[in-house]
Amino acid sequence: MISTRIDLNADLGELPPETSVDAAMMAVITSANIACGVHAGDTGTMRLAVRLARDRGVAIGAHPGWPDRQGFGRRPMRMDPDEVFEMVLAQVAALTAIAAAERVRLGHVKAHGILYTTAARDRGVADALARAVCDADPALALFGPPRSAILAAGAAAGLVTVAEAFADRAYEADGSLTPRSRPGAVIQDPAVVAARAVRMVVDGVVAASGGVELAIRADTICIHGDTPGAVAMARAVRAALEAAGLTVAPFAGSRTGLS
Amino acid sequence: MISTRIDLNADLGELPPETSVDAAMMAVITSANIACGVHAGDTGTMRLAVRLARDRGVAIGAHPGWPDRQGFGRRPMRMDPDEVFEMVLAQVAALTAIAAAERVRLGHVKAHGILYTTAARDRGVADALARAVCDADPALALFGPPRSAILAAGAAAGLVTVAEAFADRAYEADGSLTPRSRPGAVIQDPAVVAARAVRMVVDGVVAASGGVELAIRADTICIHGDTPGAVAMARAVRAALEAAGLTVAPFAGSRTGLS
Amino acid sequence: MISTRIDLNADLGELPPETSVDAAMMAVITSANIACGVHAGDTGTMRLAVRLARDRGVAIGAHPGWPDRQGFGRRPMRMDPDEVFEMVLAQVAALTAIAAAERVRLGHVKAHGILYTTAARDRGVADALARAVCDADPALALFGPPRSAILAAGAAAGLVTVAEAFADRAYEADGSLTPRSRPGAVIQDPAVVAARAVRMVVDGVVAASGGVELAIRADTICIHGDTPGAVAMARAVRAALEAAGLTVAPFAGSRTGLS
Amino acid sequence: MISTRIDLNADLGELPPETSVDAAMMAVITSANIACGVHAGDTGTMRLAVRLARDRGVAIGAHPGWPDRQGFGRRPMRMDPDEVFEMVLAQVAALTAIAAAERVRLGHVKAHGILYTTAARDRGVADALARAVCDADPALALFGPPRSAILAAGAAAGLVTVAEAFADRAYEADGSLTPRSRPGAVIQDPAVVAARAVRMVVDGVVAASGGVELAIRADTICIHGDTPGAVAMARAVRAALEAAGLTVAPFAGSRTGLS
Repeated sequence: MISTRIDLNADLGELPPETSVDAAMMAVITSANIACGVHAGDTGTMRLAVRLARDRGVAIGAHPGWPDRQGFGRRPMRMDPDEVFEMVLAQVAALTAIAAAERVRLGHVKAHGILYTTAARDRGVADALARAVCDADPALALFGPPRSAILAAGAAAGLVTVAEAFADRAYEADGSLTPRSRPGAVIQDPAVVAARAVRMVVDGVVAASGGVELAIRADTICIHGDTPGAVAMARAVRAALEAAGLTVAPFAGSRTGLS
Repeated sequence: MISTRIDLNADLGELPPETSVDAAMMAVITSANIACGVHAGDTGTMRLAVRLARDRGVAIGAHPGWPDRQGFGRRPMRMDPDEVFEMVLAQVAALTAIAAAERVRLGHVKAHGILYTTAARDRGVADALARAVCDADPALALFGPPRSAILAAGAAAGLVTVAEAFADRAYEADGSLTPRSRPGAVIQDPAVVAARAVRMVVDGVVAASGGVELAIRADTICIHGDTPGAVAMARAVRAALEAAGLTVAPFAGSRTGLS
Repeated sequence: MISTRIDLNADLGELPPETSVDAAMMAVITSANIACGVHAGDTGTMRLAVRLARDRGVAIGAHPGWPDRQGFGRRPMRMDPDEVFEMVLAQVAALTAIAAAERVRLGHVKAHGILYTTAARDRGVADALARAVCDADPALALFGPPRSAILAAGAAAGLVTVAEAFADRAYEADGSLTPRSRPGAVIQDPAVVAARAVRMVVDGVVAASGGVELAIRADTICIHGDTPGAVAMARAVRAALEAAGLTVAPFAGSRTGLS
Repeated sequence: MISTRIDLNADLGELPPETSVDAAMMAVITSANIACGVHAGDTGTMRLAVRLARDRGVAIGAHPGWPDRQGFGRRPMRMDPDEVFEMVLAQVAALTAIAAAERVRLGHVKAHGILYTTAARDRGVADALARAVCDADPALALFGPPRSAILAAGAAAGLVTVAEAFADRAYEADGSLTPRSRPGAVIQDPAVVAARAVRMVVDGVVAASGGVELAIRADTICIHGDTPGAVAMARAVRAALEAAGLTVAPFAGSRTGLS
């Protein structure tokens, strides 16, 4: 079943406010994943991003990461499920409290960087992630790649799950993302990215390496916000989705507005 | 009105677990102020301290501090009330969530280091602290020095306030603590410290500099945990208080045990 | 004596490489002040900025800051001269070693944020800064505002001093910068900023608040790199300086190229 | 060939000065490995440890670690050789500069935690470590386990190598340390540890798991400093070594005293 509605999400609160990237992205996306001061950001950027999202009607989610600022939370490392649980819980709770002080509620959680990719394939880590989200608030939705351990763990824990696709990343034939270190892993032409986004939503497929057409569930599409041209890219994707007759809106069941 | 009951508190979760200081202190104190991963500690030390306190029946409080690890949260600096609010709120919320996962509730908040001493005399900072505590949970008690801006702000915000005295610190005639940089600021003889603790609670007075007898309200007495001999000091103080016929127990209205 | 030569400097290595700001700025400036992993950046951004500067023929300097990532090294706080000394020394030494591994030498040091503004007016802090630079390498030049304690301390320590002016910041009648928190403190029109830069160098004056014409020594002009439009601003300033017949080049005595 | 001389080393500068552990250990050991502010410590603890070592005649070495404060630099993770190189270089350079300001020179480098264990078995990481030490100062000695990639890389780079044994850790039959997570991995009886130390030096063997007698080269013996009873343990080991007629002194070729 193909949707006529699609969410656009971006990871925000990761750069100093002077760069003004977040404010520009908020005008285009429908869900903001806000860094929680661990892999990037601090309570000041958290609060600022919450306010920007609230004032724009953008759905707010937590974007918990690993305490690896040097590696921006992306460095592969061993993750103990107990520690994943307590770190995700603490980060989601901190952002929840800051959001409540701004009279708005979180609607979802999307793990960052290596926490996301590890949880996507390691069910023990995924269960710790899902358990932390449940403990923080069982009404939160959990973002993850289609067919991943994250979505399986989230469903087992009774959470709403949201399948995320990446329009600007190449896919392998097995459905995994091509690693960033490989040439062609990140697609930079806005027209190509926009066309991939439309196919993902309208046809439910993405062209993967080796010429394979891969069936993909896409409840939300991720737009990267930290590259030059990120805002132009986001606008191109949104315009193409709307031109294809789709409704660009937060994922079904998300919470926006005052709490 | 002089009390027949006294609380003993210590700041914990600030050292690596290998030092085993926290476990030893938990056997002596009745309230633990647990560092929230900002001036010291991390989610692992937070969780471990929560478990130790819970298993010992020690009341649990948050010990939020300033993001100044190099200066251990003690360096004087300008504090913006908005930032005090959001940093205290995030820290208390994070510890609250970790405690809930261990099936126990927080009972109080005690600010750390320069946040404590600044809030004690600056009503704007104290109001931000009290507001953050209220936002986190209005049933939390707020620790602060007697006659301080912290207790005034806490009372104005409708919080239970708990007056804290320092048996091992010298007092000035105006009721402030003698700065650590001055000779004699920290008293190291356990017998002297124990005797001062007893006088504070039984008679409601402390000998201050210049031979002044200072009236002091002491609902809780702070024991420092990070010095060699800290545990022996704590035991001496507790033994002297009990020998004087006092009940050593968490402050009235505190919450212990399973939530 | 008015110069026919002017240096353009910017603070770099403070943002994640994905933003690509540093690479763009390196094409316009002549001296790079590279963050040393304390107020911002890490060894990876240090090395990358060193390589970019070396390959562009841009003079390399250290940009040591205070361990206040939350406040981006800008938060007012008490600074102990001993700690200023050891923190500046460690940061300059670290960047010197990384630069040497890339076969290039540092030519100067410019303090960051609150360390810069405190040292500019506090001779004790300025002496600690100058002493650390001397200990690291007595051939390093020291950047500071004209008539500041930094330049006095640097000269007393036998260092080459370089007077820095800010073309995009408003000046008070006493020669200090208008605080960022005041309206009009930061000038955003590239044409106005470029014209101010030319006047500073050609005429040795800047228009200060209250209509005062202020005599100013400008050996180098700072271009801010972390704002939207920073690169366009830098290009406008450089073009205007060249159009006025000035040579835009590293400050006299700087070291560039292979060591 | 069995030595009549043995070095005792400990990792210091990793705890807040209030704990006073470093000062006590300095009275017993002959080589101090000082944390460089990345996995633990800061420029203040670095300087203090340098002064303590200098005043006690203890040889000074750098103890560089991974930027993983939450995991105390022990968490297994992927290490890129380029990043190992630049992080070790920056840390050794920073401590070298601080030591020089205290008029003393570094004599050796010992990697910390996961950096040590990874470099011990991964030649690419070991080469990056050795190259950073060479770049910092080719006269520095490099500590590592006997028969490890660290010592091989150090020798290939022309560095003096120092073989390190652990008297309080159990060994596997293949010469590796029994992981800390296994029961019996850490030996806590001072008499047993002291007897193992003597056998290592006098006979060149250690009893490994499975009843195997393992030949071991021990130029230096590591004493852990962060556990309760660490100082008593260190004293017992030193007393036993001296009672066996050995000279307890810094490793041959080390540098102590004023530079």
